[in-house]
Amino acid sequence: MESLNIAVVGLGRMGKRHVHTLLYRVPRARVVAVCTTDSNEIQWAKDNEEYTEFGITVYDDYDKMLAHPRLQAVWISTSTDVHASQSLAAISKNIHTLCEKPLSTNIAEAQSVVDAAKQNPSVKVMAGFSRRFDASYRDAGNKIFQLQSIGEPFMVRSNTCDLRDETGFFVRYAARNGGIFVDCAIHDIDLSLWYLNDPVPKACWAVGTLQHHPELKDLSDVDNAVGVVEFWGGKIAYFYCSRTQVHGHDVCTEIIGTNGKLMVNVVPQQNNVVLADELGMRHEVQPEYWQRFEDAFALEANEFVEAIVKNKELTLKLETGITVMKIGQALQQALLTGEVTRFNEKGEILN
Amino acid sequence: MESLNIAVVGLGRMGKRHVHTLLYRVPRARVVAVCTTDSNEIQWAKDNEEYTEFGITVYDDYDKMLAHPRLQAVWISTSTDVHASQSLAAISKNIHTLCEKPLSTNIAEAQSVVDAAKQNPSVKVMAGFSRRFDASYRDAGNKIFQLQSIGEPFMVRSNTCDLRDETGFFVRYAARNGGIFVDCAIHDIDLSLWYLNDPVPKACWAVGTLQHHPELKDLSDVDNAVGVVEFWGGKIAYFYCSRTQVHGHDVCTEIIGTNGKLMVNVVPQQNNVVLADELGMRHEVQPEYWQRFEDAFALEANEFVEAIVKNKELTLKLETGITVMKIGQALQQALLTGEVTRFNEKGEILN
Amino acid sequence: MESLNIAVVGLGRMGKRHVHTLLYRVPRARVVAVCTTDSNEIQWAKDNEEYTEFGITVYDDYDKMLAHPRLQAVWISTSTDVHASQSLAAISKNIHTLCEKPLSTNIAEAQSVVDAAKQNPSVKVMAGFSRRFDASYRDAGNKIFQLQSIGEPFMVRSNTCDLRDETGFFVRYAARNGGIFVDCAIHDIDLSLWYLNDPVPKACWAVGTLQHHPELKDLSDVDNAVGVVEFWGGKIAYFYCSRTQVHGHDVCTEIIGTNGKLMVNVVPQQNNVVLADELGMRHEVQPEYWQRFEDAFALEANEFVEAIVKNKELTLKLETGITVMKIGQALQQALLTGEVTRFNEKGEILN
Amino acid sequence: MESLNIAVVGLGRMGKRHVHTLLYRVPRARVVAVCTTDSNEIQWAKDNEEYTEFGITVYDDYDKMLAHPRLQAVWISTSTDVHASQSLAAISKNIHTLCEKPLSTNIAEAQSVVDAAKQNPSVKVMAGFSRRFDASYRDAGNKIFQLQSIGEPFMVRSNTCDLRDETGFFVRYAARNGGIFVDCAIHDIDLSLWYLNDPVPKACWAVGTLQHHPELKDLSDVDNAVGVVEFWGGKIAYFYCSRTQVHGHDVCTEIIGTNGKLMVNVVPQQNNVVLADELGMRHEVQPEYWQRFEDAFALEANEFVEAIVKNKELTLKLETGITVMKIGQALQQALLTGEVTRFNEKGEILN
Repeated sequence: MESLNIAVVGLGRMGKRHVHTLLYRVPRARVVAVCTTDSNEIQWAKDNEEYTEFGITVYDDYDKMLAHPRLQAVWISTSTDVHASQSLAAISKNIHTLCEKPLSTNIAEAQSVVDAAKQNPSVKVMAGFSRRFDASYRDAGNKIFQLQSIGEPFMVRSNTCDLRDETGFFVRYAARNGGIFVDCAIHDIDLSLWYLNDPVPKACWAVGTLQHHPELKDLSDVDNAVGVVEFWGGKIAYFYCSRTQVHGHDVCTEIIGTNGKLMVNVVPQQNNVVLADELGMRHEVQPEYWQRFEDAFALEANEFVEAIVKNKELTLKLETGITVMKIGQALQQALLTGEVTRFNEKGEILN
Repeated sequence: MESLNIAVVGLGRMGKRHVHTLLYRVPRARVVAVCTTDSNEIQWAKDNEEYTEFGITVYDDYDKMLAHPRLQAVWISTSTDVHASQSLAAISKNIHTLCEKPLSTNIAEAQSVVDAAKQNPSVKVMAGFSRRFDASYRDAGNKIFQLQSIGEPFMVRSNTCDLRDETGFFVRYAARNGGIFVDCAIHDIDLSLWYLNDPVPKACWAVGTLQHHPELKDLSDVDNAVGVVEFWGGKIAYFYCSRTQVHGHDVCTEIIGTNGKLMVNVVPQQNNVVLADELGMRHEVQPEYWQRFEDAFALEANEFVEAIVKNKELTLKLETGITVMKIGQALQQALLTGEVTRFNEKGEILN
Repeated sequence: MESLNIAVVGLGRMGKRHVHTLLYRVPRARVVAVCTTDSNEIQWAKDNEEYTEFGITVYDDYDKMLAHPRLQAVWISTSTDVHASQSLAAISKNIHTLCEKPLSTNIAEAQSVVDAAKQNPSVKVMAGFSRRFDASYRDAGNKIFQLQSIGEPFMVRSNTCDLRDETGFFVRYAARNGGIFVDCAIHDIDLSLWYLNDPVPKACWAVGTLQHHPELKDLSDVDNAVGVVEFWGGKIAYFYCSRTQVHGHDVCTEIIGTNGKLMVNVVPQQNNVVLADELGMRHEVQPEYWQRFEDAFALEANEFVEAIVKNKELTLKLETGITVMKIGQALQQALLTGEVTRFNEKGEILN
Repeated sequence: MESLNIAVVGLGRMGKRHVHTLLYRVPRARVVAVCTTDSNEIQWAKDNEEYTEFGITVYDDYDKMLAHPRLQAVWISTSTDVHASQSLAAISKNIHTLCEKPLSTNIAEAQSVVDAAKQNPSVKVMAGFSRRFDASYRDAGNKIFQLQSIGEPFMVRSNTCDLRDETGFFVRYAARNGGIFVDCAIHDIDLSLWYLNDPVPKACWAVGTLQHHPELKDLSDVDNAVGVVEFWGGKIAYFYCSRTQVHGHDVCTEIIGTNGKLMVNVVPQQNNVVLADELGMRHEVQPEYWQRFEDAFALEANEFVEAIVKNKELTLKLETGITVMKIGQALQQALLTGEVTRFNEKGEILN
């Protein structure tokens, strides 16, 4: 069997999960290494019997890991500030790269990764817009574009509302994530571009509020925000992002067309169980995006690995992420200034 | 405006509600009297300002009430044991009669009311199968018979599950109600006859259990029971009745046809509100059949009153109740004996 | 019984329904008159047997109707442009007035009604914000303010999405309704003020699109729009209005608090019936706000009538409508200009 | 890494899926062989590039396959009539065995497998009650036994309703499957034993009807059936099985306790997508149990493989299947005879 030797960089919550996905759900991948600079994570990985069982080498240095003799690909799951540099380093060594979104909060830097990928066409480089691999979002896409179930789509509403973090974890990393619309809404913006067929932004506005994490004030950020994007040609997207939900990870999307509406996950459910008791009838909600998107991550990983092993086209264009980031930053600018951010017909920000 | 002078007999929980329905939702009815033998209820009615405002006379004697000079109709909402005698008395005085189900737990007695009604065709007599007036059940009927949405219906599942009564009210009246399949399942049996197009019973069996009201043992009754009815011609109905639900009044019906399935109230909801909090997402459930069927009672009352005032046919045949009761008692017999109750092709019980 | 002689002005779709509500569900009301200037409606009313039966006089002149000797109250259900003048005329004759929202699309004119009502405190004047009387919205209010189920509410999302009108009816009346945010979102704005505890607007922005009614272009209006309102103190409301839904009248509201979220009618349902067939499982949606809010109109009418008959306080303050209208117009201005509309801390528009 | 060399026997719809599960979701399994006697399936397997890629040998003879030098385990996915003999052959060669349910439709034969497994304690033998590995059913079990969310469970309702098969596939295999309660309800019976804590059957009755597959008449079988089981000690289970649903694979379970109710999959959903269009709001339903239980099969396979590789206890006792089969056959007997099947307090059938 042809397989791909891959390493996971970053062993935070998601890095560990990506290792698990690769081990358990991607038969053509062989995890040969993990890498982290965090001493606790290093120790945890070295003590991990499963990692030993599967023959995973633990690195504390990214460059040394890249020098692993059999390494063919990396899955970059570190904090956003090093995504671009780590991607560039991998690409320069002809190592295939799956980088968590976003490539960078700096658009020029993100563009440099896109450019490097273009110059190394034999290297597969993908940004991890995991929702693009979710069965429900794909079914929505199929209903819109193949089955034409809703006529012409002209509006998208999309939410990313996270469970309130009481551990301090979120606030610790907030400074690096680029603000609520860049960190939280990035998938929603990406979905709106997908379902509205790559429209060009015309104007956007946003408002926000601080309800639970006062520390965000120093970062000029908020923990709940609403943003609206008008596109050239009469299309609209609007987003609600929140860091403060108590009931779980509540991520939904609606696509409105001239002849119908699609609702994705408008009533989120942990599983198929409903409990009827004195309080009425209730179901639980997934606590994190992992539970919601575990299958999507597995499909993403399989499609990435198969694209390499079988030399197929990647299903996602790397450039998409650039427009997404531009809109995320325009919303963040509107949030900060209170002014409408405007774009010309090429989608270039005017103010 | 032509209107109908009507009295409500019995001022228990439902009697009071029927007065309210007549006052607030039946413009062609004028409530001229109420009647109860319960001294607390008499006092309550006499003290009730609304009753005074609307000019309602309070009686403690049914015969005196029947002698009210302007009385044209009665709504009998007493305990089941006097339904038949009160109906017969009213019919004999040419007073139109809406009697709560069942006419009697004794089939011969129930038949005597049907016979009396036949002999007085100018008197309108109706048994209160309120679910027949519910918008959802009517929509299901329309989808089955007019729209043929599910092909040929051949199976009905129907539940009547009541909120657990912690007040002692239920147990006090249990001795008079004829057992769980007669009292609780009577509407479900009626619905199965409706949707399966008046099939003839062939055999039935039932099992039950006592979970909360041990006092029912002395009445040879149970507080949770499942019954199955086979009809001649390959149709089936099955029922679950319960007195012990903690989440509310949970009444649902499914009708399965050769080409689809209809589900009525499979997820009961108090209203349109969902609360998302630490426990997940939940909605409340109606506590009693009143909240579920309030609109049905109003429609039932209006159709009954208009049938009289405008001299139209009643929408429900009185005889229906006889077959319903026969099946209820056959299930109760099966529950008691553990044996299958069998019917011949005329629907007569064989054992 | 003390009752109130009332007339309904305007016999369009809603006027007819209001007559029905008063006849069938408001026992203390007596409909003595209706009034319309439309000759078809006049003929329809004169031919209506029920109107004859209930003794309703049909007028073609509002002033003549006001001179009806026994008239005590009017329910104004005409087009918005005459709401204020008809209300003022009634108030000046000491006739109690229930006027459909909004009092006027001109704030000064609306204010003149509020002022007239203040000067005639013995006359009860109410604007018909019918959702305030809906059981689900009241339950949400109770959960927020009495039960404190969601902590401190800080955000409201509310939609009014109408079934697409293919009859031309909507477009004919569009010129008089003040624009999509005034006509469609007015209830949503009102709900946001209620649940956010009367916050003061700070800024708003809106975008829209024309998808089905190109004629609206001449009115500088759109048929789908999204608007966001920021309030002083960190509260936010956002709205989606549509005239082009194909699945029905889809009106939902979410209230997000520091400790939970309430969802009202996020999955609209015509009744309790679900059909399972080759297409999966489906339920129908109410076609119009009438089916969704019929009970609310009945409660509104009863509370209005009882407030008069029993001389109680009205449950709704007339002034509320003024702020609602101001926000509606500010959103409409933002929609037209593309600029943010800003308010000072008193809620006065600055641009 | 320690891994297990496994073969899949039977390459029908499910056999192919089990190979896929083992390849893609069970990292410690290595599929070394498949076996089928069907010439089409043999050819299909030999032509399958993935099987070649993963190094799978294709056998047309079970005994030859058992002689594969590195084989350690088999997953038996053939028709029920050879389950027992193939299991016994594997056990006799010390090959670990995962056998699809049921071990046999003949209880003595099934018992012989249980006995053989007992005599070879080093060989792991498991019957594939896949629902026991489903996340929702496990969550229900956790809520019942660990969290005690519903008090004492006393009643189970469980359905297995299959999509109508129009291909002739089902009828071809019907003769071998033991009848509707053995083939279809076996999982439901198993779930009722789990949730009711291994109760002993006391009596059961069943009725059925033929609606779509008249050929089943010759097999004394039906395509829709309802069965009720009474257990000693006041517990009850009831089942509805159908082969004729048009909307999909509709499998639900309710567990009623003294203090609440759990509902599992009462509203089945293919994914998180809802389409709103002229027909209302609808979602799709999984067509087959594969889509509903794909994750459960993966967990089952992983737990089976890990139990061997890490020498842990199997999570399911093989004996469970014997009682399940006994109840299935008792229901089938009741269906055939119309008589109640009765059991003594040891669970032995009396008639």
